[in-house]
Amino acid sequence: MRYPDKHSDFITRSEDPYNAEPPLRLLGESFTTPAGHFYARNHGNIPEVDPRGYSLSVSGLVDRPLSLSLEEVRDGFPSETVTATLYCAGNRREGLAEVAPIPGETPWGAGAVGNARWTGVPLREVLRSAEIGDDARHAAFLGLDDAGGTSFGGSIPVGKAMSPEVILAYEMNGEPLPPEHGFPLRVVVPGYIGARSVKWISEIELRATPSDNRYQAKEYRMFPPNASAEQAGVSEGIMLGELPVNAVICAPEDGEALAAGPVTVRGYAITGGDRRIERVDVSADGGETWAQADPTEESRHRGTWHFWEARLDLPPGIHRIFVRALDSAANTQPEDPRGVWNFKGYLNNSWHGITVRTQ
Amino acid sequence: MRYPDKHSDFITRSEDPYNAEPPLRLLGESFTTPAGHFYARNHGNIPEVDPRGYSLSVSGLVDRPLSLSLEEVRDGFPSETVTATLYCAGNRREGLAEVAPIPGETPWGAGAVGNARWTGVPLREVLRSAEIGDDARHAAFLGLDDAGGTSFGGSIPVGKAMSPEVILAYEMNGEPLPPEHGFPLRVVVPGYIGARSVKWISEIELRATPSDNRYQAKEYRMFPPNASAEQAGVSEGIMLGELPVNAVICAPEDGEALAAGPVTVRGYAITGGDRRIERVDVSADGGETWAQADPTEESRHRGTWHFWEARLDLPPGIHRIFVRALDSAANTQPEDPRGVWNFKGYLNNSWHGITVRTQ
Repeated sequence: MRYPDKHSDFITRSEDPYNAEPPLRLLGESFTTPAGHFYARNHGNIPEVDPRGYSLSVSGLVDRPLSLSLEEVRDGFPSETVTATLYCAGNRREGLAEVAPIPGETPWGAGAVGNARWTGVPLREVLRSAEIGDDARHAAFLGLDDAGGTSFGGSIPVGKAMSPEVILAYEMNGEPLPPEHGFPLRVVVPGYIGARSVKWISEIELRATPSDNRYQAKEYRMFPPNASAEQAGVSEGIMLGELPVNAVICAPEDGEALAAGPVTVRGYAITGGDRRIERVDVSADGGETWAQADPTEESRHRGTWHFWEARLDLPPGIHRIFVRALDSAANTQPEDPRGVWNFKGYLNNSWHGITVRTQ
Repeated sequence: MRYPDKHSDFITRSEDPYNAEPPLRLLGESFTTPAGHFYARNHGNIPEVDPRGYSLSVSGLVDRPLSLSLEEVRDGFPSETVTATLYCAGNRREGLAEVAPIPGETPWGAGAVGNARWTGVPLREVLRSAEIGDDARHAAFLGLDDAGGTSFGGSIPVGKAMSPEVILAYEMNGEPLPPEHGFPLRVVVPGYIGARSVKWISEIELRATPSDNRYQAKEYRMFPPNASAEQAGVSEGIMLGELPVNAVICAPEDGEALAAGPVTVRGYAITGGDRRIERVDVSADGGETWAQADPTEESRHRGTWHFWEARLDLPPGIHRIFVRALDSAANTQPEDPRGVWNFKGYLNNSWHGITVRTQ
């Protein structure tokens, strides 16, 4: 099945829940990802929400609980447009599954990422209106979907929730949010794993502790390489939040046959928090030597991916091409996926490589 | 030469300027590093400052320039004590020099790091008093030493300068600052490379751009692995700021002979910005399999190192033991120093390893 709004080349990873990603060449075509090229990541159904009956509640550790209609959200607060990349924590899981099987998880390639202009109201304006208490440490979000007996939920620290880039979005690239991207309202949390950008948001609860929703408390945890599903206690895992540094080659595609001579290699890089990409290295000899890729003019923003390209001169033969990035905290990527393997398959940021044949 | 305040086991890396570090076993003994165990990193002389004639100026993009005596700094602002780790950007250069020579730079082992309780006044209180302008983007610091025709200087972004953890310190571990650690006043910038924590500070200038002092503009830049001193233009390098994730084994020491059986391995881990260490992995088989180290009770603070220990059971033989850490942004370390080699030898955060023989 292909969701009707998605590009005809989309790769469906599961039909129910609907999970799909674009091929990398398509993804790399535009710095701002059209909705029809934007990956879909769901843990349950795609609810059809009637905007007339919709309301957003703000409760918990607040002095002034709120219940807002969609009009009250849109008209009661200043409007803001933020360009932000959403990145699924399971992106590049495929590369980890080649090390050892990762059963039961969506086998994402490197296309579970997209960048859009999100228009909405800054979350902090709504939280200020609700007069959050000094003891509030986390803002927890809950959606309107049915994701296995619960709605999908998650939380972020209050410090992040009060940062100006976090918004409650009602538009994506200047259009109303499509249903599969959270109509009528979703959170957008730049610099964090996509799971915290809860769709179809209906409740915000201010709490002393992170959300106890299953998708915060049990899922989206990073276990060590020596842990297995059977033996891992939940307490061993790390609750994921900010993204690490990462980079992917979008074109050429792995396995392509090309004419020998000059070849342009293009792709994306990304990092988390308020860090920026500072450098992208490309190797045409399997990681022995490196040259720097050029940023495209739209790159180097906080909270968005970074587009890059490099011109290689490839003689006839078989070439193993790698990319890796360095961020503004001088964090870089491990070479080998074995170093970051974990049984849930999260946040593979080992060097991304392709093999091409030239003649 | 050994500086008189330093422990008798100190390793002198250069006499003039005075650069020295403790052996790792000594360093790992105490979470709070005594001044006598704390590395010394200088680019010039150690000035003897008469506190009676001392003054601190605050100038540049401020509405109210200040010139403060030491008493005015101490008595005019609230006092704050911050536990913070200083980490030299050149720490672990030795491991990079094994890949390819790094001439002209201090050959640090892994001891150019220390953690102290710093007492002073929050920098932001002083900056507020000077009424910094909206166009101020960087706070630049200048010392009183003679570091090759200029005093040592550096800068940090205003956002960091206004964070509560950045202080102007006049005490280290409850004692007045020793001369080689910046008497009578130094900056302490937790989470950044040590070079930004300027000693013997005499000037703070608010600027639209980073400091043009040589040690900000030309030194402490990270060049790509393919750049050499001869061909690298300054513009290619990255101005260093926040630290990446890193970890080091302090005991046993590399090359030690031990009794076979249970062995306790101990060390430090560190990361930058406002991130925390979330996990430390130890391998007794050269990186094939890993187990988790336990944090010591004082660990997991932002801005300080993280002490850890692991109990290994080693049969008779030769063992290659590695450590690596994961931080709260899921950043981890590259395996191989070749992946992070740069001709200035900064920020080696490849897996740290030791070889021990047991019988």
